[in-house]
Amino acid sequence: MLRSACLLFQCNDRVGIIAELVTFFRDSNVSISRFEEYTDNQYFFARLEWKGDHPWDDASDFEAAFSGVADSFESASFRVHFFDKPQKLGLFSSKEPHTLIEAINRCEAGEYPNTEICFLISNSAEIQRYAQRHDIPFHFVKTWKDPKRHEPAQMELIQQHKPDLIGLARYMKILSAEFIENAGCPIVNIHHSFLPSFIGAKPYELAYERGVKLIGATSHYVIPELDQGPIIEQDVIRVEPGDSVDHMKKIGRDVEKRVFATALEKALWHKTITYDNKTIVFN
Amino acid sequence: MLRSACLLFQCNDRVGIIAELVTFFRDSNVSISRFEEYTDNQYFFARLEWKGDHPWDDASDFEAAFSGVADSFESASFRVHFFDKPQKLGLFSSKEPHTLIEAINRCEAGEYPNTEICFLISNSAEIQRYAQRHDIPFHFVKTWKDPKRHEPAQMELIQQHKPDLIGLARYMKILSAEFIENAGCPIVNIHHSFLPSFIGAKPYELAYERGVKLIGATSHYVIPELDQGPIIEQDVIRVEPGDSVDHMKKIGRDVEKRVFATALEKALWHKTITYDNKTIVFN
Amino acid sequence: MLRSACLLFQCNDRVGIIAELVTFFRDSNVSISRFEEYTDNQYFFARLEWKGDHPWDDASDFEAAFSGVADSFESASFRVHFFDKPQKLGLFSSKEPHTLIEAINRCEAGEYPNTEICFLISNSAEIQRYAQRHDIPFHFVKTWKDPKRHEPAQMELIQQHKPDLIGLARYMKILSAEFIENAGCPIVNIHHSFLPSFIGAKPYELAYERGVKLIGATSHYVIPELDQGPIIEQDVIRVEPGDSVDHMKKIGRDVEKRVFATALEKALWHKTITYDNKTIVFN
Amino acid sequence: MLRSACLLFQCNDRVGIIAELVTFFRDSNVSISRFEEYTDNQYFFARLEWKGDHPWDDASDFEAAFSGVADSFESASFRVHFFDKPQKLGLFSSKEPHTLIEAINRCEAGEYPNTEICFLISNSAEIQRYAQRHDIPFHFVKTWKDPKRHEPAQMELIQQHKPDLIGLARYMKILSAEFIENAGCPIVNIHHSFLPSFIGAKPYELAYERGVKLIGATSHYVIPELDQGPIIEQDVIRVEPGDSVDHMKKIGRDVEKRVFATALEKALWHKTITYDNKTIVFN
Repeated sequence: MLRSACLLFQCNDRVGIIAELVTFFRDSNVSISRFEEYTDNQYFFARLEWKGDHPWDDASDFEAAFSGVADSFESASFRVHFFDKPQKLGLFSSKEPHTLIEAINRCEAGEYPNTEICFLISNSAEIQRYAQRHDIPFHFVKTWKDPKRHEPAQMELIQQHKPDLIGLARYMKILSAEFIENAGCPIVNIHHSFLPSFIGAKPYELAYERGVKLIGATSHYVIPELDQGPIIEQDVIRVEPGDSVDHMKKIGRDVEKRVFATALEKALWHKTITYDNKTIVFN
Repeated sequence: MLRSACLLFQCNDRVGIIAELVTFFRDSNVSISRFEEYTDNQYFFARLEWKGDHPWDDASDFEAAFSGVADSFESASFRVHFFDKPQKLGLFSSKEPHTLIEAINRCEAGEYPNTEICFLISNSAEIQRYAQRHDIPFHFVKTWKDPKRHEPAQMELIQQHKPDLIGLARYMKILSAEFIENAGCPIVNIHHSFLPSFIGAKPYELAYERGVKLIGATSHYVIPELDQGPIIEQDVIRVEPGDSVDHMKKIGRDVEKRVFATALEKALWHKTITYDNKTIVFN
Repeated sequence: MLRSACLLFQCNDRVGIIAELVTFFRDSNVSISRFEEYTDNQYFFARLEWKGDHPWDDASDFEAAFSGVADSFESASFRVHFFDKPQKLGLFSSKEPHTLIEAINRCEAGEYPNTEICFLISNSAEIQRYAQRHDIPFHFVKTWKDPKRHEPAQMELIQQHKPDLIGLARYMKILSAEFIENAGCPIVNIHHSFLPSFIGAKPYELAYERGVKLIGATSHYVIPELDQGPIIEQDVIRVEPGDSVDHMKKIGRDVEKRVFATALEKALWHKTITYDNKTIVFN
Repeated sequence: MLRSACLLFQCNDRVGIIAELVTFFRDSNVSISRFEEYTDNQYFFARLEWKGDHPWDDASDFEAAFSGVADSFESASFRVHFFDKPQKLGLFSSKEPHTLIEAINRCEAGEYPNTEICFLISNSAEIQRYAQRHDIPFHFVKTWKDPKRHEPAQMELIQQHKPDLIGLARYMKILSAEFIENAGCPIVNIHHSFLPSFIGAKPYELAYERGVKLIGATSHYVIPELDQGPIIEQDVIRVEPGDSVDHMKKIGRDVEKRVFATALEKALWHKTITYDNKTIVFN
């Protein structure tokens, strides 16, 4: 297996960025295997992948070598990931298991790079069996209306396991701003509506009430404002005449599974840059 | 060409409705060629089509025969349409012609039953050529911020032509409640977002700002509350990373065309029942 | 929980079928809760559902009552299912587990009516763990090129468990005509292409070779002719430029899962009628 | 309006291609505004766009400057287009006008870069009115079973107008290999099925016969083998139970319009490279 790595880079847009990025790699005798860039005319975003021998031992070694280049651009920032580095995914769930099962099965099928699920935290004891089947450490943490009552126990588990990414698999509880800040890694949520429609609780009921002809799901990075974070992935499915709220929930599960699994995949393959509360998602 | 007709029927749900409806037609020696029904457990909705000989001269003849049956159900109402009756479609437009062109071409292609476009009213003189190409009576009516200044001229044209349906092909002006009430026929609008997201002006700009991954269009019957009417049809298209607002507008045009044309088709084939600010759309 | 049942009915099309079907139920004091019918002008197909009290003890009791009515139509046939009757689903699989996992999880989630997975037969010992996690009886049956070598062992298991439906979850072996005939129940297959394109082995490779822009999956009832059976469900997903065969296989798995799960659902809810090598699929 | 141009480049894949391409532009003081590349590990494909001042007067000037660079790669070939250069689109049609109308309207709406429709050739006199409405030169050329009888007249028109691209808008006649070779420009066809399914005449009838659940359309570059050319775009739409062949044709028209219009757009924006009977389509 060849070593492979990727660089996510962003800066103010100007003439000549592509040439300078590419030159850095050529001068390091590294061949870019995949190059993808976007601009909104103000800002420039790129993702570069390379495979095989390269002069850098690890991410911090690359950072030392590249930071001089990055400094030559205005408002630049970058992130590098070496795919031989193991990643830990932590999962939260309430009683609805469908998105959780999907994430676990895809992880087991090897769809996420070098990724292990380090814990499953749930406020429902029923959920334990899904963890047990896959030998995932399970932690029951009861939740209350006030997050201050349960977040300390959850945070302790986070600090112990140090996940690289947290996935909220229909966790259905609002996280405090403090929790989000202290989690130490990005948090991906799945919301069961096509945001920004139907924020908050009971989106299928609201969708039924409004009589929409398509229902959807949205996966986004979590920020303190509820359901307002940068969107990673969305999809929809058609509602047929006569579909009840219950039927909408049933067909919606499929969309939620797909959208959440795709968002985790994009995050774990380091194919996202968030900027201005939007997510640039690379192919 | 066989005569054909359809009945749209609704009433409070209870046991035995289907049998009684069907019995009425059997007793009239009329064979139902298409039967479609839905219920939300409180209310029952059905559409029946029949072809060939039948004992009724026209819609009011049918109404006289059927109203006794209808009265035997609670909160019943019905509408009948005989497809040999010509229908008149009136169109409104501002300067964006794409949904207008689509509606005109589909009407010309015979996709709407026995339908003629009786007028095109626009606040843009540029639009005239699209009417001329198809010999559609064109009326330029300048618009102001205050609808009271231009609605009387429009209403005069409506009263003269008596359309059976009005289509707002990206007309982009708010109609007064009085205008909607006095139009004398349903009004179908196309809104360039996936409602209820991005109500009002500049939906593509808002969609870009929020970073959604799909953009959409919505066609609905017009009610006094802006973009709040019962939805007839919606569809979406995927936004690619790097897509500008202008590009979103371009790919959105395709969705708007399709959604508006489908909504007109459903309305003109008498396949919609509105109820509780929702639209039951039959296949 | 109310009792519920459904009737699938087909006959030569003629005037008055709907009225006569509905009359039978009215005369039995049974209220139809769902009625759906289609015709291709030669043939008529309907599915009726009812809930609550009814005069029939079970399917054979209904058959006795209804067969007189059925006989009054030309070329009629019908099938009735009472949803309180437990159903057994037998699964076959080779080494690719994704469609299998999907079917098992949906069955566990209660998406199929009163259904239990009665066995999982596989030619791959690796597959056993997916059965064990869900306490499904697992049987390893080695396969050869010649089905005569392994089909007797499989048939013995079928005769022992008597499944109501068999699902081939990427089983990838051709069944003999004799096996299909003797299975005693319908068999649903998932083929990893958009049939009739790319029949047989290696469809993703063939799709890549042809340069198609969408890849798909097809679920169909099995008949002796390979990949020629009546199609129940199909879906597709877009291929992006640069996608390799391996990537197509990966994104295709999602479509295969969805299509196979939907086909099983339609079969187990008794929403399919096969006729003239086509499947009428009810909503 | 800034000048803009694009380069389409392909060669055998090896290390360092991106760096060398980019260096050429940097050394020419030209800033790349859009860069997109794909590889199948054997071959490398890229499209580069640039805007604003550049040192080249026109395409042949660029070719002279770039051919030295291209020669340094194995099996390289390239194509450059300057968007200020007008393009001529020639259209062929039989009696079905829907794809033709769509192409004409999109051209008029400015969706194709600097493009004029230079002729419409049809074997149906009915089609003339669609040309007249838009002041497009119309030529009626009667067709026979043997293309040798009508192709000379068509070829004369081609040699007179010298189109840059020919679009077959449901032309429905097979072109001779000689005609394809002598046309002097690429030819884009729309086929009314999801190829490779249902090649040749009557694809909707065949789709109905096979009972597929989705029907589609395919746009491809024309080669002598019927419906075998490199595919540019495909899309599908769902068939509902009970849909007749006629209804499939009706809903299929929408897909055909979209697919054909997209294929013309991709071709006219110079976003396609054909290779090994496949089309690389850039975003």
